[in-house]
Amino acid sequence: MGTTGEQDSGVRSVLRALDLLALFDERHQHRAVRELTEHSGLAKSTVLRLVGTLEQRGLLWTRPDGRIGIGPGLLRWAALARTTWRIPEEVRQVMRELVAETAETVNLYVRSDIGRVCVAQEEGPQNLRHVLNVGDELPLWAGAAGRVLLLGADDALLRRVAVASPQGAHHAETLRERVAEVRRDGYAVSHGERETGVSGVAAPVTGPGGTVVAAVALGGPTARFTSAAVTEFAAAVSRAAARVSDIGLDLGAGGRP
Amino acid sequence: MGTTGEQDSGVRSVLRALDLLALFDERHQHRAVRELTEHSGLAKSTVLRLVGTLEQRGLLWTRPDGRIGIGPGLLRWAALARTTWRIPEEVRQVMRELVAETAETVNLYVRSDIGRVCVAQEEGPQNLRHVLNVGDELPLWAGAAGRVLLLGADDALLRRVAVASPQGAHHAETLRERVAEVRRDGYAVSHGERETGVSGVAAPVTGPGGTVVAAVALGGPTARFTSAAVTEFAAAVSRAAARVSDIGLDLGAGGRP
Repeated sequence: MGTTGEQDSGVRSVLRALDLLALFDERHQHRAVRELTEHSGLAKSTVLRLVGTLEQRGLLWTRPDGRIGIGPGLLRWAALARTTWRIPEEVRQVMRELVAETAETVNLYVRSDIGRVCVAQEEGPQNLRHVLNVGDELPLWAGAAGRVLLLGADDALLRRVAVASPQGAHHAETLRERVAEVRRDGYAVSHGERETGVSGVAAPVTGPGGTVVAAVALGGPTARFTSAAVTEFAAAVSRAAARVSDIGLDLGAGGRP
Repeated sequence: MGTTGEQDSGVRSVLRALDLLALFDERHQHRAVRELTEHSGLAKSTVLRLVGTLEQRGLLWTRPDGRIGIGPGLLRWAALARTTWRIPEEVRQVMRELVAETAETVNLYVRSDIGRVCVAQEEGPQNLRHVLNVGDELPLWAGAAGRVLLLGADDALLRRVAVASPQGAHHAETLRERVAEVRRDGYAVSHGERETGVSGVAAPVTGPGGTVVAAVALGGPTARFTSAAVTEFAAAVSRAAARVSDIGLDLGAGGRP
């Protein structure tokens, strides 16, 4: 077995490898090694070693033009993620009806450690939209959906989320108060908390036993989220979230027993 | 920086983490820690440490029932893999026409280090079918598509593939001969090389400069791949592969410049 030092460096290598993988996104589907080195801050030898390891498992590959790209092995994860996180058609229908009712994009989020991930989306019809993709991860310390997902959070989680926020550890108190408001109102509203000009309205989806398992959220430009609009949105999102709770969302279970 | 020992243990940790992730598949979308320990052969403390690290990046998560499941963070990779490995509609159409012509499932494979990955599939109509999913990885040392993808292989690659095969290093000579046959015939046929009762017929897709970039393959039960059927299949697959080569397959490029 290894010393604590070796164990730490093992964890560090895994995180570094995953963070290298994270440098690839829709706008950067292939990268030069130089870009990976610059963005990661790691030594070139380390980057080459980690890239080589990821290539062994097909997650990255060296393209004919010499740039590093997303490997075909990632398709296996893609298939698995879609199977496991498949959203029941009934739930999608609720989301589509909410889009029709509000003319805004509807997102479904779940908590993932101290962040939130968009696991499903039905796009609104407008041209000016907040662009968010399924799989994108956002913070829990800002935004309406973040607050909703903190509804059941214990002190330890609130502290960790606060520490990750720009305001730091003392932000835990503010988060606690905001969460209390959501508990009282049944929904959350945010304006420009994470990004200037972006607003959101969210409500909780509960599972058996009443724990919060997801958040249904509308997101769009603050310009459209006027006081009057938000009042209607809050009611509509709350109704949609209640319907999804009734249908039952066994997320991450792939719909299998 | 680190000693060579630390670097090795870093690579080892990354591979162990990825191999833990690989224990999750369509039939095992969630696992007990005990299963992960048994299948990986790692100490429980190591498994918990690696699972915890993967959970930090949302690739795994601890479900309400305590079992470890595929995390929502994996959806990000799903979206990216599908974008990068999107198959042009024209190519899909060729694959669908080949299905219609042969009544067999059509798969598109690319080489990934010493293996091959199925990057696209159009299913045949029959009930008795070889079940293979997009993203699945198979060996290069067996099967018609494996042989086709070895068409441009240098000695070093052939040796590495042979070493990975059940027959070992001396299998390189057999591989070389089989590849020479494919070069002569323009297609490959295999019966039961990787799995008893499974046959395949494959032909190469070439890119600019004539390098082999993919393999179009029919796969199904040997019972249907009779001598007469294989003669027709070989002609049909060769025609389809030639059409795909003409359309141009810029794989792993996401269809963007």
